[in-house]
Amino acid sequence: MIPSPAAVNAFFAEQFPSAHAGGYRCVETGEGFAVARWPYDPTQLRPGDLISGPTQFALADLALWFLSFTVVGLAPMAVTSDIHINFLRPAKGGDLWARAQLLRAGKVRITGQVKLWVDGAPDKPVAHVVGAYVRIA
Amino acid sequence: MIPSPAAVNAFFAEQFPSAHAGGYRCVETGEGFAVARWPYDPTQLRPGDLISGPTQFALADLALWFLSFTVVGLAPMAVTSDIHINFLRPAKGGDLWARAQLLRAGKVRITGQVKLWVDGAPDKPVAHVVGAYVRIA
Amino acid sequence: MIPSPAAVNAFFAEQFPSAHAGGYRCVETGEGFAVARWPYDPTQLRPGDLISGPTQFALADLALWFLSFTVVGLAPMAVTSDIHINFLRPAKGGDLWARAQLLRAGKVRITGQVKLWVDGAPDKPVAHVVGAYVRIA
Amino acid sequence: MIPSPAAVNAFFAEQFPSAHAGGYRCVETGEGFAVARWPYDPTQLRPGDLISGPTQFALADLALWFLSFTVVGLAPMAVTSDIHINFLRPAKGGDLWARAQLLRAGKVRITGQVKLWVDGAPDKPVAHVVGAYVRIA
Repeated sequence: MIPSPAAVNAFFAEQFPSAHAGGYRCVETGEGFAVARWPYDPTQLRPGDLISGPTQFALADLALWFLSFTVVGLAPMAVTSDIHINFLRPAKGGDLWARAQLLRAGKVRITGQVKLWVDGAPDKPVAHVVGAYVRIA
Repeated sequence: MIPSPAAVNAFFAEQFPSAHAGGYRCVETGEGFAVARWPYDPTQLRPGDLISGPTQFALADLALWFLSFTVVGLAPMAVTSDIHINFLRPAKGGDLWARAQLLRAGKVRITGQVKLWVDGAPDKPVAHVVGAYVRIA
Repeated sequence: MIPSPAAVNAFFAEQFPSAHAGGYRCVETGEGFAVARWPYDPTQLRPGDLISGPTQFALADLALWFLSFTVVGLAPMAVTSDIHINFLRPAKGGDLWARAQLLRAGKVRITGQVKLWVDGAPDKPVAHVVGAYVRIA
Repeated sequence: MIPSPAAVNAFFAEQFPSAHAGGYRCVETGEGFAVARWPYDPTQLRPGDLISGPTQFALADLALWFLSFTVVGLAPMAVTSDIHINFLRPAKGGDLWARAQLLRAGKVRITGQVKLWVDGAPDKPVAHVVGAYVRIA
């Protein structure tokens, strides 16, 4: 029922090749959660060698998308409704991880939260996200 | 006092070359507002030929950054604190525009809202953003 | 089609008497907007004689509810989905006003933004809100 | 260092008597968290006998305020900066609980998330909140 990371990534590559080419991947799926990773790329940094806000947003958005697959399967027809992101600490020096956790799967709206951290420091989140995907007919 | 779009773009190119290379630009600045644009790129679309959420987020984040320059000048030392984005309509088929408007310039926190739309349809916003930059010493 | 403030207030009194008893009122409705007011009550203030965050939230939430009536009529079956509030300035010394403006009326989700200000200072907003109501069957 | 619930409630009663009179209380404090409760009051419900959004907002806002006390002590000088609330399920039929958990204590901004639930159903959250208090000099 819950698609494997390999199945998610194959679907992702087909549906959204430009993001897939950026290295983003689903690395784990399970009941009520999904984990995604962005491989560190020194050419994509902001001033101060920081992993940029858009990169963090993109990874969180993907993690929520992957989370939606654990609820409704590999359905193309879901779009982001709204996302709220708090940047908590500078993100530096390693792969970026995002773990999305289900808050509520409604008939229309799938709401989750996402914790983001840099490789090796899961207890020092760099960003926190709450967001929702909406199923479209 | 308010930096021109040309000055903003030169600073942007120097500070954040990878985003600048993506084609994002400041196109207007003024008292309490800044306008940014992303040139349509068919290789960067989501399923359904939609301009992706991360692209919209990136443009809105930049528009808020440019807005902060109209308040404090071309200062590198400002970081995004939090951003809330509502996706309102599918974004399709043209350049993406973002107009950031100042809500409040506090000592530490600069809050603004951003309207995003696709070329030719400013009255049909595709996304609405509220966010804040924080000045760091 | 668009219910008058009197019609809105009668419906409001019937549906949500405890809030109506707190003095909150709809004062204007129109195409794509609604205005609400909370009459200054010195017994309901926070430290520093500030109008409290919950009072501001309640007024913004009501303004969005009234806004939803301008879209779907006086329908009881709408609930708040999510609200994002930025407090911009101390709110002191007078009636509180809130003007809700429609961002998008979708089939399921009605999104709007709300500006809040204190009597006499509409150009110095005390809070900014973005939120959505969801229609339930 | 971390004030007890009794100390928090005494301070709360002194600083914000109208909310204290509404029955809201701090019921637990600890390293990085605070728990608050609102005692069920059938006279304060919305249509459908629901605990209203403003009541949920007020409890979450208080839980974040109490959380800030666990970081900086019983300091009056902190104000809500921004709050994002997602309503997840109808809230019915019992006391309302809110557990605020620290996400980040910065020099200026204290960010936390809050889970809200109704008595007896902690695994079915009725709302999820992310918000920040800002220390003022």
